[in-house]
Amino acid sequence: MKAIRYYGKQDVRYEDVPDPVLQPGTVKIKPAWCGICGSDLHLYFEGPIPPAPTDSQPHPLSGETLPVVFGHEFSGVVTEVADDVSGLSVGDHVVVEPFMVCGQCPACKAGMYNCCEKMGFIGISGRGGGLSEAIVVEQRWVHHIGDIPLDQAALIEPLSVAGHGVRLSGAKAGDVAVVGGAGPIGLLAAAVLKAIGVTTIVSEVSQARKDKALSSGVADYVVDPAKEDLHARVMELTGGAGADVALECAGVPVVFDALLDALRPGGRLQVIALFSHNPTLDMGSLLYLERNIGGTMGYCNDHERMIKLVQDGKIDLSQFITKRIKAQDIVRDGYEFLAANKDTQVKIIAEM
Amino acid sequence: MKAIRYYGKQDVRYEDVPDPVLQPGTVKIKPAWCGICGSDLHLYFEGPIPPAPTDSQPHPLSGETLPVVFGHEFSGVVTEVADDVSGLSVGDHVVVEPFMVCGQCPACKAGMYNCCEKMGFIGISGRGGGLSEAIVVEQRWVHHIGDIPLDQAALIEPLSVAGHGVRLSGAKAGDVAVVGGAGPIGLLAAAVLKAIGVTTIVSEVSQARKDKALSSGVADYVVDPAKEDLHARVMELTGGAGADVALECAGVPVVFDALLDALRPGGRLQVIALFSHNPTLDMGSLLYLERNIGGTMGYCNDHERMIKLVQDGKIDLSQFITKRIKAQDIVRDGYEFLAANKDTQVKIIAEM
Repeated sequence: MKAIRYYGKQDVRYEDVPDPVLQPGTVKIKPAWCGICGSDLHLYFEGPIPPAPTDSQPHPLSGETLPVVFGHEFSGVVTEVADDVSGLSVGDHVVVEPFMVCGQCPACKAGMYNCCEKMGFIGISGRGGGLSEAIVVEQRWVHHIGDIPLDQAALIEPLSVAGHGVRLSGAKAGDVAVVGGAGPIGLLAAAVLKAIGVTTIVSEVSQARKDKALSSGVADYVVDPAKEDLHARVMELTGGAGADVALECAGVPVVFDALLDALRPGGRLQVIALFSHNPTLDMGSLLYLERNIGGTMGYCNDHERMIKLVQDGKIDLSQFITKRIKAQDIVRDGYEFLAANKDTQVKIIAEM
Repeated sequence: MKAIRYYGKQDVRYEDVPDPVLQPGTVKIKPAWCGICGSDLHLYFEGPIPPAPTDSQPHPLSGETLPVVFGHEFSGVVTEVADDVSGLSVGDHVVVEPFMVCGQCPACKAGMYNCCEKMGFIGISGRGGGLSEAIVVEQRWVHHIGDIPLDQAALIEPLSVAGHGVRLSGAKAGDVAVVGGAGPIGLLAAAVLKAIGVTTIVSEVSQARKDKALSSGVADYVVDPAKEDLHARVMELTGGAGADVALECAGVPVVFDALLDALRPGGRLQVIALFSHNPTLDMGSLLYLERNIGGTMGYCNDHERMIKLVQDGKIDLSQFITKRIKAQDIVRDGYEFLAANKDTQVKIIAEM
């Protein structure tokens, strides 16, 4: 079959690979659409970092070294079902929660499989990926999507990242949340917040992203912290109280600081983004108003809830698909195009 | 009457001041014992910082400038009760929760009066203090102590700081907690943790403090991070899982880092100590195991619970009183002695 494989820095190839073989407890899926994630971009331009293997260092769970089939944000159709699998049938439309976990570490034992100490991703760490004509996946990770269109369903994975962060933030209907950064995860986080009845204030400096946050309807208010005082605006919008929660979706220390400072007494800052540089933590801001900070890693039992929000019409994923490409053109039309157009693109999805 | 008044840096005087006058809604108390707090020491050696007023800048709630009567960790006996006060009688043994709050800011409205934006302390910001022969206090802040000895009761205030931090940490029976620093607040935090059924690992470098943590029975284990690997020891003691909670009672970035790193997936680091230098936050440590961090400010509806733990014999405060002095000798026998003997002293209490 054809697949897109990742060989290392700026080396991604469209090529023939062996067909995956159905195993007990698994289903075979024909991927339909596969989104490009920020981590794909990072791997493409910067080279392999964990949980990707290298040429010589296999991933501890997959046992595979480079190359690996690429792509972990995908939807597809079930084409084969192992005899011991029930509840999934040929023709079902599904998405895959692309984890591989050890099942034995403290995090796995505590049910926090997303924090598995050996954690890997299908589409990064081995065991196939979404940019292929077929993939075999353990039943555990396969979720029915019903009548959600397959193109939109490719966004369920990043939506689950956002939804997991929102869940850990504790945000609830009637709250006010500040979302720092309106990239794909920030927009999806705002979408989840809106869907559960939270008022959203999106902080963003890029004009294109500010426009998208407003036109998509996920932001009730947009604040440009380069032009306005975020703290003052949040206080104005909350009657002087401050925001109940904030979601850091930018990975930038100055945003981290500003969000912490915009919280009400006892408020919570949930960090979803990865940081290249660690922030200095203002202990006064943390202590004097008893604020809270939490970290987020992927998702954990979030897919079903996100699928339901989309099925119920609470979230419209179609507006976040900004480009559709062919998988064989993914370097030019995907990674390179996205890197050059980060502000105007939200999600680029590729079809095999 | 006689009182100890704070005039500023290294200027504390034992002198005659006017007697306070009973007001509606208040009681008059004759302080019995008053503990010396780290913040008293800081004010004495470094000069006034908020919530202390200065010579020219009055505290926003008390309206007072320096000098102010000193001392906020005190017990005493009720000597006079306003006509409109019920539930308190002459002769009652009490402690005072030494807050002054505005009642109108977002924190006050949310019931988090300890985070009041104008917050002050009796004994620091004005309205009298524990180092005097009489003080008039609003009924709201007065707590019955029953038969707890008055000397031990002077420690209810710092115990409430510790108890508040433990409460916000979410620690519960069966958990394992790491306490960073075995100064007065660290020892009291360990005492509260033990009292509610938590296994305590105390991290401390000072030999005298390590000895105290063990001899007082508040530490199940003591780890010296200068000699041992705290992370390795905690993993060993928790079967590889990590600690459920950690309490930062040292105010030192390297301790902050080590405690965060010792937590299990989803664990919580509660910061009680003030920091002179802000730590750099390791975002990897926060995100990959979905750890949580919270700040603590004073106490808020914690006194009654702490009083009950002492009355029920779950916490023995007597062992933390390491020196008793006369109030008029507080500079020499209190501040200067404590500054020179921080490692061997826990709580010095003064009698008028």
